[in-house]
Amino acid sequence: MSHSNQPEAQLLARILKQAGGVSHRTQGGRLPVGIGDDAALYRPSPRNETILTCDWFLDGTHFLVEKHPAESIGWKCLARAVSDVAAMGGMPRCFLLNLALPASRSGAWLDEFLKGLRMAIRAFGCDLAGGDTTRSKQVLLNIAVIGEVAAGFGVTRSGARAGDSIFVSGRLGEAELGLRLVGLKKGPLHSKNPLLQKHLYPEPRLALGQWLAKNRLATAMMDLSDGLSSDLPRLCAASKSGAQIDATLIPTPRGLAASKRLQLALHGGDDYELLFTVKPQNALRIPAKIAGVRLTRIGTITAATRLVVKTGNGKIEELKNRGWDPFC
Amino acid sequence: MSHSNQPEAQLLARILKQAGGVSHRTQGGRLPVGIGDDAALYRPSPRNETILTCDWFLDGTHFLVEKHPAESIGWKCLARAVSDVAAMGGMPRCFLLNLALPASRSGAWLDEFLKGLRMAIRAFGCDLAGGDTTRSKQVLLNIAVIGEVAAGFGVTRSGARAGDSIFVSGRLGEAELGLRLVGLKKGPLHSKNPLLQKHLYPEPRLALGQWLAKNRLATAMMDLSDGLSSDLPRLCAASKSGAQIDATLIPTPRGLAASKRLQLALHGGDDYELLFTVKPQNALRIPAKIAGVRLTRIGTITAATRLVVKTGNGKIEELKNRGWDPFC
Repeated sequence: MSHSNQPEAQLLARILKQAGGVSHRTQGGRLPVGIGDDAALYRPSPRNETILTCDWFLDGTHFLVEKHPAESIGWKCLARAVSDVAAMGGMPRCFLLNLALPASRSGAWLDEFLKGLRMAIRAFGCDLAGGDTTRSKQVLLNIAVIGEVAAGFGVTRSGARAGDSIFVSGRLGEAELGLRLVGLKKGPLHSKNPLLQKHLYPEPRLALGQWLAKNRLATAMMDLSDGLSSDLPRLCAASKSGAQIDATLIPTPRGLAASKRLQLALHGGDDYELLFTVKPQNALRIPAKIAGVRLTRIGTITAATRLVVKTGNGKIEELKNRGWDPFC
Repeated sequence: MSHSNQPEAQLLARILKQAGGVSHRTQGGRLPVGIGDDAALYRPSPRNETILTCDWFLDGTHFLVEKHPAESIGWKCLARAVSDVAAMGGMPRCFLLNLALPASRSGAWLDEFLKGLRMAIRAFGCDLAGGDTTRSKQVLLNIAVIGEVAAGFGVTRSGARAGDSIFVSGRLGEAELGLRLVGLKKGPLHSKNPLLQKHLYPEPRLALGQWLAKNRLATAMMDLSDGLSSDLPRLCAASKSGAQIDATLIPTPRGLAASKRLQLALHGGDDYELLFTVKPQNALRIPAKIAGVRLTRIGTITAATRLVVKTGNGKIEELKNRGWDPFC
């Protein structure tokens, strides 16, 4: 870290200065060894389980470096990885930043990126513990997040049973709407456009996930990253069950024709809202909002391993998986 | 995982079948939730600290997909990340596999890659706990390893003091020699060539690192990934000290002219041997070999923050940093 004559060391020093040690929540001896050694040392709390999750975030696949503000890339790379911790009902503790950059991105671009990353570190109380930097032609990011949850309280995808109510947080499809606006706009984006907020600065639903886990209300949970029509089948498969959702109940983006709104809400990805199931006798214990985020019951888990959607005119149709798959 | 109609799910099923659950050492409830959920859940042992480390392994930067056997890429991606756990004196427990692939690599190439990865999982007792897969033009790998070490026993880079003896394991420069042979050879390599073994199938020095940590013999330790002339300055900077090493003591590759051997040993990367320091009164407690790996005293930590090498004819020269830097 002190070898300022070396380019890699310079990059590390820049990252450490701008994103190292900014959250105070995980201090107090939790990270006796952070950035700069062969590995970080982390002290887990007794009686907790460790949550481990990683996410790719690649130029050309997940974002466009020429178009997306560097600050939003910094925010979103951590937000989407932390969202997986929220989906287990846990608290994020620290993360490893894996950053591969072309030389042209190691100046002003990197500073803006680190500004967004720092905002996310503070917002989520998730400290930079280490990582790896290298050179590449494209901007490549991979974030590993380490979280914790009280042993036995982590919520998986596999606990939903026939009769459970299906809930989602927030409105679905808003991030996809933002992505489409990005596609229409030429040149770099301005990050202040309110229609772009959900796409550029998603908010992992940490308070909601923790509340559901602590109160043992969610029988299954996952975050909506690829779209409801892709993610609900995953939850149902893990739970060996099916689902019927009601199109008229799904919370959709505002200010669009009804048919368009539903398509966005069913198939749009990147919302990072939580999808969770609740036993019938507990459904009334779910409030309309938690920490300012609305919660909506959208359907029921079924014993038949079919996924169907009831449309506005009462028809029952198969829910077609049209969400995002990076290999399609 | 059960959505075999989806390409991403097919890839996951292939990884799970070939590399999931093959080590028995970390079973027994240590991974109550593994691959296939939003995140893995891991149960750390009481009184241990968690070791966290990540490593990039990229086509074009760290290996050549057209040239290196896929099996060796699978082995090496885990071996080099596990080496950072060895360097802390710890035991690897599990890892997250981040794999981005072009479609052309998701068949026979992937099978060979997973074969090498499975060999490494078994050899190191380090289980696949999760990760992320996506599509990309190049083969991109990032491995996050989770390890453990008894609280307070982890060995950092910062504890070396003037007078401490400097040791290395194995022979330095053998991996670099292998890399040069790769450069000379046209077309794909045969992995059986003994001169290529260290380059293709490096062995993290887990038993040595654990023995040194357990017996509190190493005052500082790191693994040699970029070359002695790059890595020793890092250990010295972290320890706010300097070093004098003796060129005649450095264990070099066999079967080459003496001058070439020394250059390879000083500046060659990718050896994954351990570099460690020992208090003068403990130097005699270091045996000639641990777990079949030779240990060699190569010099002394000094108070002056200079790094010098004593040559065969008794001259004292500055140790020039000529190891590997991905940004140079």
